Amino acid sequence: MRTAIYPGSFDPVTFGHIDIIKRASAMVDKLIIGVLRNSAKTPLFSVEERVNMLREVTEGIDNIEIQSFDGLLIDFAKSVDAHIIVRGLRAVTDFEYELQLAQTNKAVYPDIDTLFLVTSVVYSYLSSSVVREIASYNGDISKFVPECVTEKLKEKFDK
Amino acid sequence: MRTAIYPGSFDPVTFGHIDIIKRASAMVDKLIIGVLRNSAKTPLFSVEERVNMLREVTEGIDNIEIQSFDGLLIDFAKSVDAHIIVRGLRAVTDFEYELQLAQTNKAVYPDIDTLFLVTSVVYSYLSSSVVREIASYNGDISKFVPECVTEKLKEKFDK
Amino acid sequence: MRTAIYPGSFDPVTFGHIDIIKRASAMVDKLIIGVLRNSAKTPLFSVEERVNMLREVTEGIDNIEIQSFDGLLIDFAKSVDAHIIVRGLRAVTDFEYELQLAQTNKAVYPDIDTLFLVTSVVYSYLSSSVVREIASYNGDISKFVPECVTEKLKEKFDK
Amino acid sequence: MRTAIYPGSFDPVTFGHIDIIKRASAMVDKLIIGVLRNSAKTPLFSVEERVNMLREVTEGIDNIEIQSFDGLLIDFAKSVDAHIIVRGLRAVTDFEYELQLAQTNKAVYPDIDTLFLVTSVVYSYLSSSVVREIASYNGDISKFVPECVTEKLKEKFDK
Amino acid sequence: MRTAIYPGSFDPVTFGHIDIIKRASAMVDKLIIGVLRNSAKTPLFSVEERVNMLREVTEGIDNIEIQSFDGLLIDFAKSVDAHIIVRGLRAVTDFEYELQLAQTNKAVYPDIDTLFLVTSVVYSYLSSSVVREIASYNGDISKFVPECVTEKLKEKFDK
Amino acid sequence: MRTAIYPGSFDPVTFGHIDIIKRASAMVDKLIIGVLRNSAKTPLFSVEERVNMLREVTEGIDNIEIQSFDGLLIDFAKSVDAHIIVRGLRAVTDFEYELQLAQTNKAVYPDIDTLFLVTSVVYSYLSSSVVREIASYNGDISKFVPECVTEKLKEKFDK
Repeated sequence: MRTAIYPGSFDPVTFGHIDIIKRASAMVDKLIIGVLRNSAKTPLFSVEERVNMLREVTEGIDNIEIQSFDGLLIDFAKSVDAHIIVRGLRAVTDFEYELQLAQTNKAVYPDIDTLFLVTSVVYSYLSSSVVREIASYNGDISKFVPECVTEKLKEKFDK
Repeated sequence: MRTAIYPGSFDPVTFGHIDIIKRASAMVDKLIIGVLRNSAKTPLFSVEERVNMLREVTEGIDNIEIQSFDGLLIDFAKSVDAHIIVRGLRAVTDFEYELQLAQTNKAVYPDIDTLFLVTSVVYSYLSSSVVREIASYNGDISKFVPECVTEKLKEKFDK
Repeated sequence: MRTAIYPGSFDPVTFGHIDIIKRASAMVDKLIIGVLRNSAKTPLFSVEERVNMLREVTEGIDNIEIQSFDGLLIDFAKSVDAHIIVRGLRAVTDFEYELQLAQTNKAVYPDIDTLFLVTSVVYSYLSSSVVREIASYNGDISKFVPECVTEKLKEKFDK
Repeated sequence: MRTAIYPGSFDPVTFGHIDIIKRASAMVDKLIIGVLRNSAKTPLFSVEERVNMLREVTEGIDNIEIQSFDGLLIDFAKSVDAHIIVRGLRAVTDFEYELQLAQTNKAVYPDIDTLFLVTSVVYSYLSSSVVREIASYNGDISKFVPECVTEKLKEKFDK
Repeated sequence: MRTAIYPGSFDPVTFGHIDIIKRASAMVDKLIIGVLRNSAKTPLFSVEERVNMLREVTEGIDNIEIQSFDGLLIDFAKSVDAHIIVRGLRAVTDFEYELQLAQTNKAVYPDIDTLFLVTSVVYSYLSSSVVREIASYNGDISKFVPECVTEKLKEKFDK
Repeated sequence: MRTAIYPGSFDPVTFGHIDIIKRASAMVDKLIIGVLRNSAKTPLFSVEERVNMLREVTEGIDNIEIQSFDGLLIDFAKSVDAHIIVRGLRAVTDFEYELQLAQTNKAVYPDIDTLFLVTSVVYSYLSSSVVREIASYNGDISKFVPECVTEKLKEKFDK
């Protein structure tokens, strides 16, 4: 069975992420969405909130599993017996960083491989940080995230 | 009347910025220089100091207005009824970031358009942060900023 | 009066070009679409055919003029008394080439300036050469060019 | 069954291609290597020679099929009922071209998706054209292509 | 006598740095490795530890000197009478940043020139920050740094 | 003795090339300018004309030698016992191509190393092909090439 991991912060999940999730899940037997805990940064949403939003927006896709993780991605991959990492590419600067990461991971754990998908053109400019910024000023984000995420963002910034 | 905004931190204004201001002001009826307040970062110069330096170095250009703003650029654009954003491009990494920003702004506010000018070749390597760093070590910045800015920088770092 | 030139081969005009034409014509007083004759390459469509297609697809935009030219762009700009060149940017490799061109033109003719617009995200992957290739194999190009251009391409490749 | 196409000219196949073939074939049920006939360019090796070299160097990988094709890649994909295109990425300029291609293919044939693998770091500088050039001057290419390909190249340039 | 400086944080030194040091020292009469003190960032290793590790791993290369410095690189260059700065290039984003730096340095101190070497392909993805991150999770870094550095990293993270 | 090669077509030599020649010759004991014969392309100037123009514009620099060569650069390097190749970098696309070339050369001939210099900012947009094009339309090229080259170009295009 081909198991792949799609790792990220998903703070919050956007239509760009959902696009990659749908397409990647069609390519493998099982897709584990790995939500990075990342103790170094303070996220807007807790890991639990991020996992819950992902669960809500991926309902109906059968071969998906959502897990949080901390530490090295390759250690997480080993622990779930996954040999494929899925990454979405948007721009050239993305690409260089991702290339460096993929080659480092391969050097440390030769049994892992990274599969890149290019984000659909209509979402190519989207990022969670831009969504957070616009939402913080009460801007319109309905083109960027699902309705349930819009509501969660409103709750955060109304507090 | 075609009104454009040239937004930035201008901390401090450099010859590169002045080059863009001159060229952009020749292309539109009114150019509003929007000085970003940006509460998240601690600037070297206060908004008032930055506005004043800009006023001094743009004296003699008639169709210019200098305003500070906070929040989303597109909200500022709406408030001054501007439909054009002016941005200077230096390098490829600039370009990707600017492209993402322009597309996000367009998605949120379809009536806005971004006009890019390429920084003149002799200023292509210039940035406010490099100027600040060199000035902090008492280095020679006379090729990078007007004399009045050099003096203001000296005052800051002599304190 | 601000006159700008939007130069290109337009072999054939695509939705990407039309997007730039609409946005640029809203920024200047007169937009001259300059159709490059370019004796070095053999185009699919003659200059006359390309001019005619442009005329058809830009009908209704008042401040547009369509002219063909040969030789250096800056000589054409001088001859029509234009001081602005409009260019559409899609990708990073575009950007570097365009930057080099803009700086060369400025060095030869300091009174000229280049204004860049970023192609709308849905057309960011489009190019005339891709359209020609797909059309040559009878592929579906309805998302890339207006109907009248589709018909002209069919005529070309049915011969 | 997940069928993928790995298209290319393979003129000749290099260690870089073989690396992608091994890794891609481990990710899908069937990998069809599509050898582009491309009537526009004059290849060094005929399609038959290129197919034969590929056959020789991929011996032992079970889920591989080698076919030549002409025309649009998406038409070939439809004809073999493949919904995944595999592409190897080396550098940034590769990336931009590939991104444009992937988005065009998706626009014309929405059921197709492109999966990118990054060429292993030791082969990241390799290209068939460089191999051909070095071989044409009798240079050492043993680090770039399998022995059987080295021999075929020697035959070509000894004639 | 041609004296060059190879500046960096070396926090810690990697095989990538050592590769550049060996190659650069073969090109000049004297190579001064300049270890940046950088009061703004908190390094993992103190300047003294970094200098000591560099001393250990460059033993046997005769024309090398290791010094720490603070402030502007060009001031350090003047103080040791060096007219060449050596920098390693890995990726495109590196390149742009380095280009900007080289041009700024040249503008401030015209007698200085920057010589770039491209990091050997097997180390092209390596960076000190990646090494630190992997080591912090007890991952295998034996392919990235010499044994003595591995031990020092273990000591740091075992504390 | 450190001998370096600065290879190129020099069709014709520009101020950008001369800038690199001056700076590179100050870094090594002997700089051999290698003029590529390149039978595949038809140059504007013959190898002899190109060598003569180079001789004229580099007069007064003592440690320079000008030679023409054909075939692989590494074979030429071996024949003159040079272990350093000098290349000028202007833009990101340059960089990627140059990086690939440097790594290929190193793989074929491990004793060779490539030293990159960044073209001075005022010449960063310059290329021989742009110079040829502007000269062919009788445009002003005095900012791009020395006077003796301007004259040679006039002779070519007046014929």
